[in-house]
Amino acid sequence: MNAGEDRPSRRRTASDQVEGVLLEAAQDVLDREGLAGVTVRAVAREAGAAPMSVYNRFGSKEGLLAALAVGTLKDLWRAVDVDRPDRPRDPERRFREACDAYRQFALAHPQRYALVFGGGGPLAQTGSETSVYGHAAFEVLIELVQDLAGRAPEGFADVGEAAQVVWTALHGAVHLELGGIGQVSGSPDTYARTVDLLVRGLR
Amino acid sequence: MNAGEDRPSRRRTASDQVEGVLLEAAQDVLDREGLAGVTVRAVAREAGAAPMSVYNRFGSKEGLLAALAVGTLKDLWRAVDVDRPDRPRDPERRFREACDAYRQFALAHPQRYALVFGGGGPLAQTGSETSVYGHAAFEVLIELVQDLAGRAPEGFADVGEAAQVVWTALHGAVHLELGGIGQVSGSPDTYARTVDLLVRGLR
Repeated sequence: MNAGEDRPSRRRTASDQVEGVLLEAAQDVLDREGLAGVTVRAVAREAGAAPMSVYNRFGSKEGLLAALAVGTLKDLWRAVDVDRPDRPRDPERRFREACDAYRQFALAHPQRYALVFGGGGPLAQTGSETSVYGHAAFEVLIELVQDLAGRAPEGFADVGEAAQVVWTALHGAVHLELGGIGQVSGSPDTYARTVDLLVRGLR
Repeated sequence: MNAGEDRPSRRRTASDQVEGVLLEAAQDVLDREGLAGVTVRAVAREAGAAPMSVYNRFGSKEGLLAALAVGTLKDLWRAVDVDRPDRPRDPERRFREACDAYRQFALAHPQRYALVFGGGGPLAQTGSETSVYGHAAFEVLIELVQDLAGRAPEGFADVGEAAQVVWTALHGAVHLELGGIGQVSGSPDTYARTVDLLVRGLR
């Protein structure tokens, strides 16, 4: 590799690294202090950088939150991804495993989950990068539902509608569990019964 | 009625009226400005009263929010109540009507719904007045599920667990709709399909 090929690549990597460090710092602040704690100043302090470096990379606090949301959706996508070679081949087992992975992700990262799915965030803005990644994550669910129930699950207009109903139920379970307001004890059981009901309703 | 019987009753009524006026003012502020806008000062201003009158009746801002949450749960309870004489007798129709009433209530009062079910509120405090009213509202759902599916719906430990799963799905649908982050268009359809799935899974 000659210097001419090397230099731009090295420059891009350095810039990517700064962005990565800032995003990681933002994620730590979010995990520790919640959404209200994520300010440009707090994130810069956490990363040992100047506030201007945050503005340079993300434009604004909103840009930083959008990047955090995209990062969260990418991680969630990876967590539930059906195409990983270590996933089971049986559609029902794969569906159940992905549902469990969704819950585990939310419980492990409650603040990141709330940022994306708490409402009022960048996911609601049609055409935003976040909404594009949101749709990509949703496509994974569509694939799972399709493998389990076929292209036109009975009782639904299409597989997309069925996937939306599945997501609806999983999100409701996770959101009530995170809020600590379930009315019966045993959230893992409630979640398992919710998934059972979905499997029964889709097959 | 002599003066001795009348006076305490009139005093109670006057005090109730002040409390009612303050609660109504708090609800208006909540509807208009969201949870962040509900301060003792803002509510007193809205009611044309002194901040001290809010402290006298509710103790603190937290007490005021708890009273708002209780009021919301009472209204929600009334909205979905199965025992009203105008409700249909058929269990499935009654279940579907209550599910629709739940959604309509949330869409009509998004800020009040978020106050109670957004997480982190007084509903999560075991033994609080809010949690008692929350459980009373949940009892209505248990009754609906029992009428539809019997005391031990197949696939659930008991009717309470089944009711929790139902609530989970309804809450998820309403919460995603309020947040504007559903992935397929047509929220009323998604909600109707969610209720269909629940009915199929419970019968």
